[in-house]
Amino acid sequence: MRLIIDVMSGDAEPLEAVKGAFKALDELGCEITLVGNETSIKEAISTLSRSEEEIRIVNAESVVTMEDDYLVVIKSKKNSSMSIGLSLLRDGEGDAFISTGNTGALVAGATLILRKLKGVKAACIGAVLPLKNPVLLVDSGANVEPDAKSMHQFAVMGEVYARNMFNLGSPRVALINNGTEYTKGNALARETYAILKEDTDINFVGNVEGRDIVDDVCDVLVADGYTGNIILKLVEGFGHYMSSTLKGLLFKNLKTKLGAIFLSGEAKALKKSMDYTEYGGAPLLGVAKPVIKAHGNSNAKALFSACRQAIAFVETGIVSEIAEKAELWRNNRKEAEHE
Amino acid sequence: MRLIIDVMSGDAEPLEAVKGAFKALDELGCEITLVGNETSIKEAISTLSRSEEEIRIVNAESVVTMEDDYLVVIKSKKNSSMSIGLSLLRDGEGDAFISTGNTGALVAGATLILRKLKGVKAACIGAVLPLKNPVLLVDSGANVEPDAKSMHQFAVMGEVYARNMFNLGSPRVALINNGTEYTKGNALARETYAILKEDTDINFVGNVEGRDIVDDVCDVLVADGYTGNIILKLVEGFGHYMSSTLKGLLFKNLKTKLGAIFLSGEAKALKKSMDYTEYGGAPLLGVAKPVIKAHGNSNAKALFSACRQAIAFVETGIVSEIAEKAELWRNNRKEAEHE
Repeated sequence: MRLIIDVMSGDAEPLEAVKGAFKALDELGCEITLVGNETSIKEAISTLSRSEEEIRIVNAESVVTMEDDYLVVIKSKKNSSMSIGLSLLRDGEGDAFISTGNTGALVAGATLILRKLKGVKAACIGAVLPLKNPVLLVDSGANVEPDAKSMHQFAVMGEVYARNMFNLGSPRVALINNGTEYTKGNALARETYAILKEDTDINFVGNVEGRDIVDDVCDVLVADGYTGNIILKLVEGFGHYMSSTLKGLLFKNLKTKLGAIFLSGEAKALKKSMDYTEYGGAPLLGVAKPVIKAHGNSNAKALFSACRQAIAFVETGIVSEIAEKAELWRNNRKEAEHE
Repeated sequence: MRLIIDVMSGDAEPLEAVKGAFKALDELGCEITLVGNETSIKEAISTLSRSEEEIRIVNAESVVTMEDDYLVVIKSKKNSSMSIGLSLLRDGEGDAFISTGNTGALVAGATLILRKLKGVKAACIGAVLPLKNPVLLVDSGANVEPDAKSMHQFAVMGEVYARNMFNLGSPRVALINNGTEYTKGNALARETYAILKEDTDINFVGNVEGRDIVDDVCDVLVADGYTGNIILKLVEGFGHYMSSTLKGLLFKNLKTKLGAIFLSGEAKALKKSMDYTEYGGAPLLGVAKPVIKAHGNSNAKALFSACRQAIAFVETGIVSEIAEKAELWRNNRKEAEHE
């Protein structure tokens, strides 16, 4: 297993990413290619008292920043760590690519450098919501204005990913909506509902409302990228809010601090369950090879989780399975055009 | 001050609503008209050992259920407690109307029986999110597919409400989006941003992302009703999730129960801060008179809060202020048509 890791594009210095990569090298038995500024990477390796011989370094002269337009990756910054990493993956010099960078640029770059699978209308990002049970949210922000057919494809691709990665026989697929009845929603939601209802290959459990998401009612949650991104960030925001509120509660005064002593084990378990670093990153679905978007401020642990996730992404053959589905969509479209 | 209360339309028996109404009668010095099944209301009054003489009862022969289509209130169920209550308000037999019923029916009924203020394109519902600081979410579900001009009106009407009810000099108005840059969002969000940016009468602070909502970055949050409803219910769901998780943590075993003793005061304060019953109900904005939608499973406390809120809604003159703004919109539209 050969992983390509962009260690430059995130908000953090490469040290944490390099540390996570070496942990993956040690514990997961994979080969690692680090892409980024060679000097910075070598400094990080030296800081960690490791050897450059253990991994491959590919120098990149620029970095896609979080503020960059999403098209820079294929225009003005072709020599960026993200662009080079994607090209290495395309050229077979690795099995999966992990980047902590700009989501929009990563989706655009993966779509244009790796290409979409034939039959896929739009690639999407599947983020894992850290709730009681993990919920895969598709799309979580790549397509702010998809059509209903794309929404259906997000659902199917998400189903394949969740079934393989969460070890589920038949993941429950739900559509986020402003009510459970099929008549609810805007035009896109109503049209998507109708298509999902017709697809007997997936276990579509219908519309779910915002309040139900936390209650283990689905494994895959389908949304347009605008709504999905708002949901993802609201869940993340609430995770932080919950942690900080709990912390404030436990350490407010001497009396509560005394109580905190009895609760520390449980509080840690709770914090862990709300911690996105446990779940790794967000998979890109619909592109020709496995790509994972890790959090922009990923620490070593989060990057290590993303590596473990990337290996499972490759080994379960998710991309091939999605490619088969996409081939069917393509044939159906061709037939429809001929009629 | 004369309040009209629909005690039948909620999920709960009328007893709790009647109890809340009597509390308002005792503590807020208002006159109360209860609308609903006369026998049930009299039974509730008797259970509470109060006298029928203290309030006015108006009998209603049917009830709008949560499952009813939103148009029943003006079609097949004109004799429902909701329809009669709205008609009493229209006819000047009260200053404000409170209902625990079906939101869609209440909006449709208020729009058709009371009428919208002239110049208002669509009435909206402003729900208060129970966060660190209260945030008024407009629209929270009345219009799943508004246009950008309606979104602007939601913002202005929400600003008037928040300024008067939260005692703020200049409420911060924000637009929910999938990123902070003005280029972000679907077509509706981008167009709405442009209009809000131009309106110098409101303190528009730009786009906010889902994760920022919990961080006291705005007082009024503008959303289309589809997205707003998902946000509202997700925040409610997280409130419950947080309470139940905290409870599970505190009462897990003997050791944590011991810790809980030291924390009980703080835990109660936290639970209270996440409790929607503290905030009363959701105001309808853009209709000709004050209407409040109280939670469907409102207990006496929540209904009492809604009464207190209704009184402030009337006394602050919010409806007149919105009417003045709407008159300007109407004149601008006329001018634009003449040009």
